Amino acid sequence: MEAITKDTNVVYIGQKPMMNYVLATGKKLGEVGSSVLIQARGKSISKAVDVALITLDRSNGGVKLDGIGINTEVLPGSDGNPLNVSSIKISLSKP
Amino acid sequence: MEAITKDTNVVYIGQKPMMNYVLATGKKLGEVGSSVLIQARGKSISKAVDVALITLDRSNGGVKLDGIGINTEVLPGSDGNPLNVSSIKISLSKP
Repeated sequence: MEAITKDTNVVYIGQKPMMNYVLATGKKLGEVGSSVLIQARGKSISKAVDVALITLDRSNGGVKLDGIGINTEVLPGSDGNPLNVSSIKISLSKP
Repeated sequence: MEAITKDTNVVYIGQKPMMNYVLATGKKLGEVGSSVLIQARGKSISKAVDVALITLDRSNGGVKLDGIGINTEVLPGSDGNPLNVSSIKISLSKP
């Protein structure tokens, strides 16, 4: 996934309202040939799926789902112990 | 996905503690050649990803991720209007 992350636009899903991320994703898919990677961790994963599906829906077939990857990331926890967190990457493109 | 749903075991992710679903998933992957479909809607999508990743992790390579699908489901809302809800299906198998 390293090369993909470098070459494409990435939208990281956080605590903002969902429509902020839908607009950000749509903006990065403005031109034909563009692509975007929607990334989220933990509880934000559901929101990432919402953002991807709304983007696909609003595009009326103009945007394509290229793939979905899930992974476990090991983060430093607040108590110093490593913390396993699930992550998702959803790849969309405008062919 | 219709045929897959009929032929495989399905674990629906709900409000129970995550480990309940990890154990249920592991049980359905007891035999070589078995497969399971982990399904969730809305906020439970994050938990479904956790369950899949923990199952993969605990299997030490014995369980394979076959695919991930996302979809918008239209449910009847509490006010009678249709409600769009995101859903995820994660397919795991023991080859």
